[in-house]
Amino acid sequence: MTDLQSYLKEKRLLIDNTLREIFASFKDIPGILRDSMEYMVFSNGKKIRPILAIATCESLGKPADKLLPFACAIEMIHTYSLIHDDLPSIDNDDLRRGRPTCHKVFGEAIAVLAGDALLTEAFRVMSDKRFTEMVSPRIVQKIIFEIAHAAGAEGMVGGQVVDVIYNGQTGSKAVVNYIHAHKTCALITASVRVGAMIGEAKSKELRYLTRYGECVGRAFQIVDDILDYEGDEKVVGKRVRKDKEKQTYIKHYGLANSKEEVAKLVEEAKRSVQFLGERSEILKELATYIGTRNL
Amino acid sequence: MTDLQSYLKEKRLLIDNTLREIFASFKDIPGILRDSMEYMVFSNGKKIRPILAIATCESLGKPADKLLPFACAIEMIHTYSLIHDDLPSIDNDDLRRGRPTCHKVFGEAIAVLAGDALLTEAFRVMSDKRFTEMVSPRIVQKIIFEIAHAAGAEGMVGGQVVDVIYNGQTGSKAVVNYIHAHKTCALITASVRVGAMIGEAKSKELRYLTRYGECVGRAFQIVDDILDYEGDEKVVGKRVRKDKEKQTYIKHYGLANSKEEVAKLVEEAKRSVQFLGERSEILKELATYIGTRNL
Repeated sequence: MTDLQSYLKEKRLLIDNTLREIFASFKDIPGILRDSMEYMVFSNGKKIRPILAIATCESLGKPADKLLPFACAIEMIHTYSLIHDDLPSIDNDDLRRGRPTCHKVFGEAIAVLAGDALLTEAFRVMSDKRFTEMVSPRIVQKIIFEIAHAAGAEGMVGGQVVDVIYNGQTGSKAVVNYIHAHKTCALITASVRVGAMIGEAKSKELRYLTRYGECVGRAFQIVDDILDYEGDEKVVGKRVRKDKEKQTYIKHYGLANSKEEVAKLVEEAKRSVQFLGERSEILKELATYIGTRNL
Repeated sequence: MTDLQSYLKEKRLLIDNTLREIFASFKDIPGILRDSMEYMVFSNGKKIRPILAIATCESLGKPADKLLPFACAIEMIHTYSLIHDDLPSIDNDDLRRGRPTCHKVFGEAIAVLAGDALLTEAFRVMSDKRFTEMVSPRIVQKIIFEIAHAAGAEGMVGGQVVDVIYNGQTGSKAVVNYIHAHKTCALITASVRVGAMIGEAKSKELRYLTRYGECVGRAFQIVDDILDYEGDEKVVGKRVRKDKEKQTYIKHYGLANSKEEVAKLVEEAKRSVQFLGERSEILKELATYIGTRNL
């Protein structure tokens, strides 16, 4: 096991433990709602967003304990978006992370509501003194704004809407770039920025780290398109070759250019964190990992 | 036009104006997403939740200007819940506020996403300095928690889940009381409490006002059940006699007892705000209005 692999394992455990605490804080909720939320939250996801947040915070020399509830809130928001994206009325997917999707197990109504609950509870966790009392309300408010903006109409949901309406349409490079920037990149960039905020980054550092987030966010989504195009369902954990009707990077730029763009983005991400000196190692390794995962 | 009617009209205008400002703050969102969100937000709703918040704040002798963004966020959350409740996989309703439901006009995928966007943007608005700079971050955090908790798994979404799973089942008084307390009452009570927080209520005042909120919240949902049972679709603005399979107050308590319970709750609501003296008038009139609307 490489160093990065054990790093990822360690952080995933940390995140899972905090998520368990969050789920233990629900006292009075219907059993099927708890089950449907937990089914997707504890389903062996890569947890790349909270890990990026933690790595960013620690690269700035600050411990990540105060960050954990926010990192988990981001993972809850990411998970809700998967549940809703998989719905029959949207992408109609049966498989996610190697298991039947939420609506396949719990029915469509409960899947809609499990997503709604995860999204709402993410904001409850971030504002809940039990979880964030060590962070000043001013920073709490700033982080909630950062995440809500990245996840909302001008971010992730906006990107998802364009993904849906251009399904089966001709599209263009501008369309695929809009989808990538909003649907995927916005929340990944926000994850890095939230890590930087808890890490007390100065404004110049925040700018460099934001660029890092944008580069790994774009690389992540292009790799996703490549995996759909040439990956193996068993390895990828979800249905592949399903994006034929979708606006993908490969459709508009070709496979070779897509791979080249990923390599370029990974290099730019690494350059962006050069200012951290020795402490940049993990962020650099994460960029490489994002650019080569399952390839 | 009675005094209350002109009061409601004036406050609705105020709320609509703030909602227009909020929608003007979206710069870069897909047209169909904006249209689908606005379609339901500006659809002649009663706006009872933000009005209760404003009335509570003003009853405490404080102006409601600082409250408006939070009151509008609550209305956005209420609106998202209507859009998702109406979905084919949940209540499958075609009519809402006298117009075709969101998914009937924009399709199911966009309706899911419009709801997601409204919910997320409600939290963006509450944390957005452009809207809430006059409120201290400590109070902002408290209000976000209050609303997220009321709207989430332990509140509105939890109630909706029980509503869904007991559809067509035998049910019980305990079940219908759980549904009412969580699905409807939680967010209405939170509206009153948020008004009280901006109104700087002391802890004893907050307790009385919370009780007021619980009473009008319960009355509101029982009246909803009564309207479904004996109302006219054209007046009510949504399909009626659709709750035959649902857990309603009438099913478990009978029509006469339901009406009696509404009257009792309205009286208790009024008693709870007695401490406000002359300033209690509007809250009392609102309680009466909630207990008799469209009856």
